[in-house]
Amino acid sequence: MTQLEAARAGKLTSEMKQVALKEGLDVDFIRSGVAQGTIVIPANPRHSNLNPTGIGKGLSTKVNANIGTSSDFGDAQTELRKLKVCLDSKADTVMDLSTGKNIQAIRKALIAASPVAIGTVPVYQACIESIARDKTMVKMTVDDLFNAIEDHARDGVDFITVHCGVTQSTIDRLKEQKRVADVVSRGGAFLIGWMLYNERENPLFEYFNRLLEIAHEFDVTLSLGDGMRPGCLADATDRAQIEELLTLGGLVKRAREAGVQVMVEGPGHVPLDQIDMNVRLQKAICEEAPFYVLGPLVTDVAAGYDHITGAIGGALAAASGADFLCYVTPSEHLSLPDPEDVKQGIMASRIAAHAADIVKGVKGAGDWDLKMSLARKRLDWGEQAKLSIDPEHFQKLHSKHASTSKACSMCGGYCAMALVEEYLGVSAPRC
Amino acid sequence: MTQLEAARAGKLTSEMKQVALKEGLDVDFIRSGVAQGTIVIPANPRHSNLNPTGIGKGLSTKVNANIGTSSDFGDAQTELRKLKVCLDSKADTVMDLSTGKNIQAIRKALIAASPVAIGTVPVYQACIESIARDKTMVKMTVDDLFNAIEDHARDGVDFITVHCGVTQSTIDRLKEQKRVADVVSRGGAFLIGWMLYNERENPLFEYFNRLLEIAHEFDVTLSLGDGMRPGCLADATDRAQIEELLTLGGLVKRAREAGVQVMVEGPGHVPLDQIDMNVRLQKAICEEAPFYVLGPLVTDVAAGYDHITGAIGGALAAASGADFLCYVTPSEHLSLPDPEDVKQGIMASRIAAHAADIVKGVKGAGDWDLKMSLARKRLDWGEQAKLSIDPEHFQKLHSKHASTSKACSMCGGYCAMALVEEYLGVSAPRC
Repeated sequence: MTQLEAARAGKLTSEMKQVALKEGLDVDFIRSGVAQGTIVIPANPRHSNLNPTGIGKGLSTKVNANIGTSSDFGDAQTELRKLKVCLDSKADTVMDLSTGKNIQAIRKALIAASPVAIGTVPVYQACIESIARDKTMVKMTVDDLFNAIEDHARDGVDFITVHCGVTQSTIDRLKEQKRVADVVSRGGAFLIGWMLYNERENPLFEYFNRLLEIAHEFDVTLSLGDGMRPGCLADATDRAQIEELLTLGGLVKRAREAGVQVMVEGPGHVPLDQIDMNVRLQKAICEEAPFYVLGPLVTDVAAGYDHITGAIGGALAAASGADFLCYVTPSEHLSLPDPEDVKQGIMASRIAAHAADIVKGVKGAGDWDLKMSLARKRLDWGEQAKLSIDPEHFQKLHSKHASTSKACSMCGGYCAMALVEEYLGVSAPRC
Repeated sequence: MTQLEAARAGKLTSEMKQVALKEGLDVDFIRSGVAQGTIVIPANPRHSNLNPTGIGKGLSTKVNANIGTSSDFGDAQTELRKLKVCLDSKADTVMDLSTGKNIQAIRKALIAASPVAIGTVPVYQACIESIARDKTMVKMTVDDLFNAIEDHARDGVDFITVHCGVTQSTIDRLKEQKRVADVVSRGGAFLIGWMLYNERENPLFEYFNRLLEIAHEFDVTLSLGDGMRPGCLADATDRAQIEELLTLGGLVKRAREAGVQVMVEGPGHVPLDQIDMNVRLQKAICEEAPFYVLGPLVTDVAAGYDHITGAIGGALAAASGADFLCYVTPSEHLSLPDPEDVKQGIMASRIAAHAADIVKGVKGAGDWDLKMSLARKRLDWGEQAKLSIDPEHFQKLHSKHASTSKACSMCGGYCAMALVEEYLGVSAPRC
């Protein structure tokens, strides 16, 4: 039984209980959300050391960190170091996007070392193995692709990105649209190349039932990828993107009918004033399937700082109802991220997620800020550090310049809080 | 004649012409905005090396960087180094918030070295000199305060923050409100201490005409400070904050009548879903005076990363109509910022301002992104670097890991853009 089938049957799984405990919510709320498909719990039973996380409506906004080698850089040791950074920085899930050597060995090592859900994009491996064998990915067979997916599932991957919505009709839309940046999804680009060369439909769409069988057998959550996500502001919310979204909406329905957990991926590069609409459109078209967004990035010009660009878009998207933020690192568009980039990306996305959770009314979100502010008012530096989103970094910056007063060195003897305490004698309410 | 009086008289000043040129707008649009008070050009004629900047409706969103010593740290050399960082990082204006030794000497050195408008908060100096003389700032006289303001104006300061809205009735509101974080504005706190001890009205309010005379004589733009800005999310948009805003709205009208340029400062710590309302409220109450916001910060818990928290809030505020963003550095709440913090703060705020300008329809904003995306599509790394918000940082990250392909090391041989170019044969429109 998948989590979805169990939920429908009224069964409370240990995963639902763990998610309920983490969220501080009633387990029946979780079960009901999973049954309706508005919550997913990516939890492959073969990922034995998993501490499961729920993603979806009514839960705190989750953050994913992408790690993995590229064809140019990275090895198992570096990726395991990045995984440690992800765990220390409190990413909720990690995706292994490796496209270098020893893809399976790295995946297995990451799964074995990870208490958080692991996601992958199996089409990468299928294409790369085809290139290794035949010097081109266009000779990849349909079996190659599904065998890769099954391998990933068998290894214990909790969720997989599958670009099922990149169909021939989506490609037609793309052609008539004439985009500035065409396709920026690697999985989408691989599939388009394959489809055009072979003059065939996307196997992930044509044989969606075969995909559902694998996902069902291993309770792998499908993350329906957006191969048509806009790669620049000028391409945002265009006909190609929305054509694909319509297809994904239909596939959500089929996945749910098959007892398979499913979420939907979204953009990408999106102007600030189109983000809310994008989220609400996805929720409507995809019958409230959890929405997993990359960024969104609110400008194209800030490479080097795209963790910030993504935090702006991510906060807005999450506040509008997006459930799951894929981080963006300062190296996006420029280089394979190193461990420090991974940390910066996670912190930026966690800030975005939390800022949204406050206004979404997620349980406990606003209380955290209140406790911090009460500690700040008391100039209680130890408590502030403990409550801050990154206690170690807090301590480091606070101790950079010693202050002669109870306050910090920014205002020194002229701290407004200290001054007002002295003269106004208003005492703040305590926790 | 102040810029405002000239504009009303139909005169095109050289400052208006320079602003029009920078913005790519017709000079009569600038003149008309200045005449209506929806645009200000902080330009003290005594700031002889000034390259003036316009702030307000229809113009690009501007970014201010705060520098200056604290009672614990900083000296003229360090502050001049920070000014250089501000100029290199393209801050639009700089405020000198020095509260350490040799305040006037530092101010004069900064003004002499700065082609961008310089702002200050004269009440700091008045209070600190009073403390030096009498061991307490409550013995500051009304003349001390206005003499400090006149000194700043005479030295060539282009705009000053004056907390005129911190009145006895605002303090009453503050007391009945029972805030979590009371007052976090240093200027506000100084004045409240003085007012409570001396049982007198705020001199900046009581003798507002005296303030207007000085501002008029030197064409110093008044930036009506928000002493009641919320210092935590729980205090946002409360009765104390809005009481002060109502007072500021009335003072905007009086300033304009006196031919004095005026803008209004705003919060602070504000939950994401209250930002748009705060901006629209300010615009309505203050008759569309330019709005200058600090952050806003959308969570209280992210000290160490508050440049990101502020970029999220700043992007939203600017998209809703805020005209001027005061940066927040990673050291906010923790320590006096050092030059690297200054740079990080400026970059974060510039990203926020630009993301907003795209959706505000500011001239040229969207074109910048389009050019960048066309260069990205061509994998033209030199052009991308040149077009990026921080070319040097772009180059540094891009060259961190060499790639074996035309693409960057993130995707290496599997760059979606390169793949699609190969198979799809769609060629993107060119600039």
